[in-house]
Amino acid sequence: MKTSNVEVICPMITPFDGEGKPSRENLKVFLDDMKEFGINKIFPLGSNGLFNLMTLETKKSFLKMIQEEASNFEVLVGVGSQNTEEAREMAKYAEDLGFDKIVLQPTYYNKAEQSWIIRHFEAVSEVFSGKFYIYNIPQFTGSRVEIDTMKSLVENIGRIEGIKDSSGDIRFFNEVAANFSDSLKVFQGQDDLLLQALSIGAKGGVCGTTNINPLVTDVYKYFVDGNITMATKTQRIFNQFFKMVNEYPFPSMVYAAFYRKHNIKGKLPDPITTIPRIVESKIMDVLNYTTHIEPQ
Amino acid sequence: MKTSNVEVICPMITPFDGEGKPSRENLKVFLDDMKEFGINKIFPLGSNGLFNLMTLETKKSFLKMIQEEASNFEVLVGVGSQNTEEAREMAKYAEDLGFDKIVLQPTYYNKAEQSWIIRHFEAVSEVFSGKFYIYNIPQFTGSRVEIDTMKSLVENIGRIEGIKDSSGDIRFFNEVAANFSDSLKVFQGQDDLLLQALSIGAKGGVCGTTNINPLVTDVYKYFVDGNITMATKTQRIFNQFFKMVNEYPFPSMVYAAFYRKHNIKGKLPDPITTIPRIVESKIMDVLNYTTHIEPQ
Amino acid sequence: MKTSNVEVICPMITPFDGEGKPSRENLKVFLDDMKEFGINKIFPLGSNGLFNLMTLETKKSFLKMIQEEASNFEVLVGVGSQNTEEAREMAKYAEDLGFDKIVLQPTYYNKAEQSWIIRHFEAVSEVFSGKFYIYNIPQFTGSRVEIDTMKSLVENIGRIEGIKDSSGDIRFFNEVAANFSDSLKVFQGQDDLLLQALSIGAKGGVCGTTNINPLVTDVYKYFVDGNITMATKTQRIFNQFFKMVNEYPFPSMVYAAFYRKHNIKGKLPDPITTIPRIVESKIMDVLNYTTHIEPQ
Amino acid sequence: MKTSNVEVICPMITPFDGEGKPSRENLKVFLDDMKEFGINKIFPLGSNGLFNLMTLETKKSFLKMIQEEASNFEVLVGVGSQNTEEAREMAKYAEDLGFDKIVLQPTYYNKAEQSWIIRHFEAVSEVFSGKFYIYNIPQFTGSRVEIDTMKSLVENIGRIEGIKDSSGDIRFFNEVAANFSDSLKVFQGQDDLLLQALSIGAKGGVCGTTNINPLVTDVYKYFVDGNITMATKTQRIFNQFFKMVNEYPFPSMVYAAFYRKHNIKGKLPDPITTIPRIVESKIMDVLNYTTHIEPQ
Repeated sequence: MKTSNVEVICPMITPFDGEGKPSRENLKVFLDDMKEFGINKIFPLGSNGLFNLMTLETKKSFLKMIQEEASNFEVLVGVGSQNTEEAREMAKYAEDLGFDKIVLQPTYYNKAEQSWIIRHFEAVSEVFSGKFYIYNIPQFTGSRVEIDTMKSLVENIGRIEGIKDSSGDIRFFNEVAANFSDSLKVFQGQDDLLLQALSIGAKGGVCGTTNINPLVTDVYKYFVDGNITMATKTQRIFNQFFKMVNEYPFPSMVYAAFYRKHNIKGKLPDPITTIPRIVESKIMDVLNYTTHIEPQ
Repeated sequence: MKTSNVEVICPMITPFDGEGKPSRENLKVFLDDMKEFGINKIFPLGSNGLFNLMTLETKKSFLKMIQEEASNFEVLVGVGSQNTEEAREMAKYAEDLGFDKIVLQPTYYNKAEQSWIIRHFEAVSEVFSGKFYIYNIPQFTGSRVEIDTMKSLVENIGRIEGIKDSSGDIRFFNEVAANFSDSLKVFQGQDDLLLQALSIGAKGGVCGTTNINPLVTDVYKYFVDGNITMATKTQRIFNQFFKMVNEYPFPSMVYAAFYRKHNIKGKLPDPITTIPRIVESKIMDVLNYTTHIEPQ
Repeated sequence: MKTSNVEVICPMITPFDGEGKPSRENLKVFLDDMKEFGINKIFPLGSNGLFNLMTLETKKSFLKMIQEEASNFEVLVGVGSQNTEEAREMAKYAEDLGFDKIVLQPTYYNKAEQSWIIRHFEAVSEVFSGKFYIYNIPQFTGSRVEIDTMKSLVENIGRIEGIKDSSGDIRFFNEVAANFSDSLKVFQGQDDLLLQALSIGAKGGVCGTTNINPLVTDVYKYFVDGNITMATKTQRIFNQFFKMVNEYPFPSMVYAAFYRKHNIKGKLPDPITTIPRIVESKIMDVLNYTTHIEPQ
Repeated sequence: MKTSNVEVICPMITPFDGEGKPSRENLKVFLDDMKEFGINKIFPLGSNGLFNLMTLETKKSFLKMIQEEASNFEVLVGVGSQNTEEAREMAKYAEDLGFDKIVLQPTYYNKAEQSWIIRHFEAVSEVFSGKFYIYNIPQFTGSRVEIDTMKSLVENIGRIEGIKDSSGDIRFFNEVAANFSDSLKVFQGQDDLLLQALSIGAKGGVCGTTNINPLVTDVYKYFVDGNITMATKTQRIFNQFFKMVNEYPFPSMVYAAFYRKHNIKGKLPDPITTIPRIVESKIMDVLNYTTHIEPQ
C-alpha cells in the first residue's frame, strides 16, 4: 500500500512496572513496538493510560518520561481530570515541557452541564497556548459534549485542532463528522467503527488495540488507497480481534497482552484486579492474532 | 451510473383515503412514484405501513390490492402481528394470493423471549411455503432477535432469504453482517446508516424515505459503482433530509409529504394526530429537497 | 384485622384450556379461588390476561363468560389494544354486556405521542358511557402517560375513576399520587411496591400475584389498620415470593402455578413457550409459600 | 413530637468563600444552622460537598477545620476518590485527626468491576481502623455496589456500620433493606424517598436538603412516632420543595440558597457555572419554604 501518513493514533497504556509505577524501561519497549507497527502518533494519559488511577505527581513524572523518550512521535497529551484545577496544572506542565497538543474531556463524577464544559476548556486554554483536541467519552464522564458546545469551543478557543469521539454512537459521530470534518480532524475512538467513520468523512482513528497489534491500521490504509473491498474484509477480520480484547474489563487485556508479549512483570494500579483473572490461553490468542491482511 | 439492480426496498406507506381506509387510487399514484424513482421492490404492511393500526380485514383487503396492482414489483409482504395466530392468518392469506416472500418480526406488547421468537417463526412457517425475512426492530417490539436466534431460524426454517435490521445499533448490525452477509441478504433498515451498512457488507437498504424521495438510492449506486467519495457526499447531504423527515413522530412526515405532493386528501388512522400539526412550510421543505446528486 | 373493603384488584389470568382457549370451567375454579382469597375485584383482559395474544373474537367470548360467571365481582374490563378501532369495539361490547368500568392503556408498537393517547381515550369514550381507569405501563406500550396527559383526560373525559400505574418507577408514582390521589383511586400495579405506594397515598393495588396467593392483601390490611410494623414485615416476606414468581418470563409462573394447583391441563397461546421450561420444584415452592402472616 | 435521636444525616456542602476555598467562618455559620435544625450528624466531603472538585490538599485542610469546629457532631468523613491511592491517603488522614467513621464509594471514570470495589475497600481498611459506610451512587460512579459485594465487604472487612444507597432505585433499595437492615444502619440517600425507605425498614436518611431546610426531618419524626398520616402529608409537601431544589443542576441550588440566606459571597469551584444563572426569585422561593409541618 502506498499510504505514507497513517492517521491512526495510539491511546497508549502507561507501561507500569511491577510496583504499579510508570517505568522508563517499559516505555522504551512500548515505543519500539510503535515504530515496528508504523505508528508515529501517541496519546498518553488518556483512558487507556488509566490517568484517573494516577496521582498528579505520577502523571507529571510519566509525562516527563514521554518528553525525554518520545521525541520522534507526535504527542497528544491527555490532561483530563475530574476538576478544572488539576487539568490546568497538567496543561501548564505540558506547556512547560514543550508539548503543543492536548486532549481534554469534561470533568466527571457529578455530571457536567454544557456550560461547565465550556468553562473547563476556557480555564485550561488560559494556561496552554497550543492546540486542543475535544474528547467525547460520555460513558466515562457522564456528559456528552454536544454539537453546539463543540461549535462554541471552536469559535471561542480558536485553537481546536480535532475531535475524538469515543461515544460509540455512530449517529452522534455522523453529526460530528457532518459539522466538523471539513475544518477539523475528526477521529473515531472506537476501533471497530473505524471504517464506518472513515466512510462518512472521519480523518482517522484513535485506536486502543494498536497498543498491541497494528491490524486496524490496515483498515485505514486500504480505505485511503480506495480499496474498499479489502478495507471491509480487514475491518471484519479485525472486529473478531476487538471482541477478544474486550472480553475482559477495559483496559485489562491490552495491558496483559503487552506485559506477556515482552515478559514484563507489570502491575495495574489499585483497585484493578482483572489481570490475575485473565486466562493465559486468551492472552496467547490475542498475541497470536494476525497483524496484517495481504491484498488479494 | 451503471448500476442496474438497485437493492433498495421501499417499506411502503399504506395510501389511506380521507376516511383512513386503504385506497386503490392512491396506491396507483404511489406505485407510479416508485417507477419514477427506479424502485421495484416494495414491503407493504410494515411499520411505515402502520399495519398495527389496521384490523385483520383491512390488512387483507390492502394486500389484495397490492396483488392486483403491483405485479411488476418484487413484493415482501409484512405479516407481523402482536400474536402468532394473526401472523399465521396473514401468512396463509399471502400464500393464497400467490406471494412468495414475507417479512416477520417478533410478537410484541409483552416482551418476547428468544424461544418465543423461534416458536413464532416455526408456527408461521407451517402455513407459508415461501421465503422469510427476519425483521429486527426492538424499539417497537421490545425484543431483539439475537444472533443465535437468527442462526437457529436459518438452520431450522431453511427458507430465510434475508434479514432487515432496523435497530439503529451499528454494532449489532455489524454482528449481523459478520454472521450472515455471505449467505443471506442483509439489509439496513435505517436510511441514514445505509452507506455505513454497505461498507461492512450489507446487501442494501429498506429505506422509508423512498416513499417520497429516491435520493438515498444514489448512495447505494455510488457505493456499488466504487465511487466512495460521491457515496459519502450523497449520504451526508441525504442525512440532512433524514433529519427533516424525522422531526415529526414516525411516520407522520412521509404520509404528509405524499399526500401533499399529490394533493390527496388522505387521513391517518386513529389515534395518530400528528399530521394536522405539521407545518406546511416543513412539508414543502421536504418535498423540495434534492432527489439526485450529480457526480463531480 | 378489621378491614372489610380490601382495595386489591386481581389483574386476572385468562384460564385457558388445553387448546389455549378460554375455559368456562377453569374460570369458575379461578373465581372460587378469589372468593377464598377475599378478593372481590377483578381486571380481566389485562397484561396478565395476555389479551394481546387473543383475537378480538376470543376476547369477546371470554368477556361474555365473565359477565355470566362473575356477577358477584366488581369487574374492570381491559379494553386496551394496539389500535383505537379495536379498543372501541371492545369498549362497545363491554357496554352492551352491561359492564360499567374499563381500563385503557395507550396504543403500542409504534410509540404513541401524548396527543395520540388523548385521541385514543376520546375515541373510546364516544362509545362507552361508564368509568375509565388510566393504565400506565410504558415498559409494554413504549409510551408513558404523562401527568399533564392524565390531567387532560380527567378534565375532558370527566369519567376517570382511577389510575393504575405499573411503571415500577416510584418517583413517577409519587407524582401521580401527589396529583390525583385526593380525587381519584390511584393504584399501584407492582405488587412489591404496594406498601410504599400506600405510604404516599395510594388507594390500593392491582396485584398479579393474587392470581395464586393472597398474601399481598395482608400488606394492604395491616397498613389501613395502622399496623405499620406488620405491614413492613409482611411486604418484606412477600417480596421473596414476588422474586420467585418473577424468575420466569412474565406471566408464565402465575399460569403454571394456577394450572398445577388445580391439576388443570392448561396451555398458553403461541408463541409463549415458557411453561414447559419451568421446573416442577419451583412451581411447588410458589404454591407452598405462606398465604398469611399472623400479627405478633 | 417525642423523637430524640433523629437519624437524618446532612451530606454537607463545603462552605466555600468568594475565592472557591473552604471557609472556616462560613463553616461556623453552617454548623449553627445545623444546631438550629436539630441535626447532629454530618457527612462532609461527599457528593454535595463537591469533593471531586477539590485537590487532596484542599480536602485535607477542610477536614482539619471540621475536626476543630464540629466536635459536637457525629462526623462521617467522605474519603471517596477516583483512585485507591488517594482514598487511602484521605482515610489515613481522617484516622490521624481522630475520626472514627468514613464513607466510601467505588472508584470512578472507568467503571469499577465488583472485584475492584472489594479491593478498594480492602486497601482502605488497611489504613483506617474505624467504621465504614458503603456508599452506593451508581449515577456518579458508573458502578453499582451489588448486594453480594456488600455481603462480601460486611464479612471480610467486619467494620461496616451502615450503607447509604443514593441510587434512587427503590427496588434495589428494598433489596438492600431486606438483606442488611436487621444488622446495619441502612440509609436512604434520596430525600424524596425517605418515607418509602423507612416504610420498608431503613434506619434513616442522608438528606441533601437539610443543608438549607430541616423539613425532611419531620418526615422521619412522624414516622418513628407512628403518625403515618402526618408522615405521608409531610413527605408530599416536602416533595414539592425537593423539586424546586432540583430544578437546577446538582448541587447548585443548595449552595445558592445557603449563600443567599446568610448573605455570603461564596463561589463554587470551576467548572461549575450554574449559580450565576439561578434566578433570585427561585432562591427566595426555596428559602421561604416551610420548615415544619404541625400535626393536625
